[in-house]
Amino acid sequence: MVIIESIDKMKNEITAYKEKGLSIGLVPTMGCLHAGHISLIKKAIEENDIVIVSIFVNPTQFGPNEDFDKYPRTRKKDLEICRTNSCDFVLLPQSDEMYPEDFLTFVEVKSLGKVLCGISRPTHFRGVTTILTKLFNITKATRAYFGQKDAQQLIIVKKMVEDLNMDIEIIGCSTVRENDGLALSSRNTYLNDEERKDGLLLYKSLTLAKNLILNGEKNIEVIKKEMENTINSGKNTSIDYIEIVNSKTLKPVSKVEDNILIALAVKVGNTRLIDNIFIDLREKAI
Amino acid sequence: MVIIESIDKMKNEITAYKEKGLSIGLVPTMGCLHAGHISLIKKAIEENDIVIVSIFVNPTQFGPNEDFDKYPRTRKKDLEICRTNSCDFVLLPQSDEMYPEDFLTFVEVKSLGKVLCGISRPTHFRGVTTILTKLFNITKATRAYFGQKDAQQLIIVKKMVEDLNMDIEIIGCSTVRENDGLALSSRNTYLNDEERKDGLLLYKSLTLAKNLILNGEKNIEVIKKEMENTINSGKNTSIDYIEIVNSKTLKPVSKVEDNILIALAVKVGNTRLIDNIFIDLREKAI
Repeated sequence: MVIIESIDKMKNEITAYKEKGLSIGLVPTMGCLHAGHISLIKKAIEENDIVIVSIFVNPTQFGPNEDFDKYPRTRKKDLEICRTNSCDFVLLPQSDEMYPEDFLTFVEVKSLGKVLCGISRPTHFRGVTTILTKLFNITKATRAYFGQKDAQQLIIVKKMVEDLNMDIEIIGCSTVRENDGLALSSRNTYLNDEERKDGLLLYKSLTLAKNLILNGEKNIEVIKKEMENTINSGKNTSIDYIEIVNSKTLKPVSKVEDNILIALAVKVGNTRLIDNIFIDLREKAI
Repeated sequence: MVIIESIDKMKNEITAYKEKGLSIGLVPTMGCLHAGHISLIKKAIEENDIVIVSIFVNPTQFGPNEDFDKYPRTRKKDLEICRTNSCDFVLLPQSDEMYPEDFLTFVEVKSLGKVLCGISRPTHFRGVTTILTKLFNITKATRAYFGQKDAQQLIIVKKMVEDLNMDIEIIGCSTVRENDGLALSSRNTYLNDEERKDGLLLYKSLTLAKNLILNGEKNIEVIKKEMENTINSGKNTSIDYIEIVNSKTLKPVSKVEDNILIALAVKVGNTRLIDNIFIDLREKAI
């Protein structure tokens, strides 16, 4: 496994593989790797000749009062995980090379980035699409892997790739959960025991919504109200949003229909957690 | 010469050449090709194995009250010019394929696009950088060619490529002028005889500025005033802006220094013309 810190070095290394016609899988991460990331890496390994994991806590996707400084950085353990899982390259870009002082260019998917998480994090998705454009260009990846836990991110990235005719396939992978249902997230490390218990309410409310729908409930407000009650039963929970939207346009739906996304963000203590499920009525599956 | 209208077809055609390691030169145009474009094509032919000219009147770079509808479209003559100059491909993308109804993604170079022409054309450069990102991705070009007549565009595109780590070289080519100094532009076709005469005042004012500087004038206001007088001597001229700026940051300079750009935009009748010169004092050259 080769660890690369320089953009030019990464570009040069990968050019040789591209010229041989080999496929490149990219797993873009902010480190603090957990089983969710590992599932992406495994899928990338299965589907590509060469796999790159990038680890970069990207400043442009954090708001001014967010957790950029305290975001967990566990480089040694991350590298071990990459090595154990047979990654070919780990890209550890340097912040001042990624964003030199005179950096000015942003990629933005309008409107999709201004709903759901975009309301309380107005520049977040612009930061995500900008760093991913850079990483896609640097790694010349054939495929890039994202967790469905960040559903809005996945939908926005797919839209960017389509709109800008980028030559890369975006692969969404199922959310990995603890046995008790908590979606894996690097931010779970912030939770104390009591908060962790409250964190379970997110998936509990999603499961409740799914059951209501499978039992024929069509009324969005009824479903949202039940979810709200579930979340508010926690001692440390404060709802940021609970939304039921079209899974492509992210626009609120007026009644339960095919291809919806049920998504929520909840503050548990000081930690903001998100979770979601996609529902396709035709498959009656999630 | 192959004429291609479909994005997928262009991507497929070019992939084969890229896999052979051949270099691709792209000349992005809005058609109505003139000797300025031909100079770009010739340079692209010299420097690349394969040359693509794209012709697309890009709606996103026109403001709501600008000349999108009346912009000259001369496809037959354009194709003849491409054929005569031995282009390999002409890409004629279809508007509804480039910008489907649900198109949402934009690439923007902040601040550089908000000065000079960006003041009266606030969304223009965002439209330019977005369409070029698309064209660069579709053609996988090794190099792309731009005229220095659109100096601000050239500077912004170079900045975008640098910031987003795009794998393409941006080549700026000297402005081509008529014998009397008028910079070639597709918009010159809008001018009547009297307006064309007034159009000469742009280059005349730039030449005057250059001579003042070469004779030791350092005062920006003096130089701008002299240019202003020259432009205002026309019967049909109305100044949009006359600026002397740093050629990288596009910020106004307080006195004459190395690497400045003198740029102006003037309405001549209903036609908005632009022109500029770069000045490097060390070379005493333009």
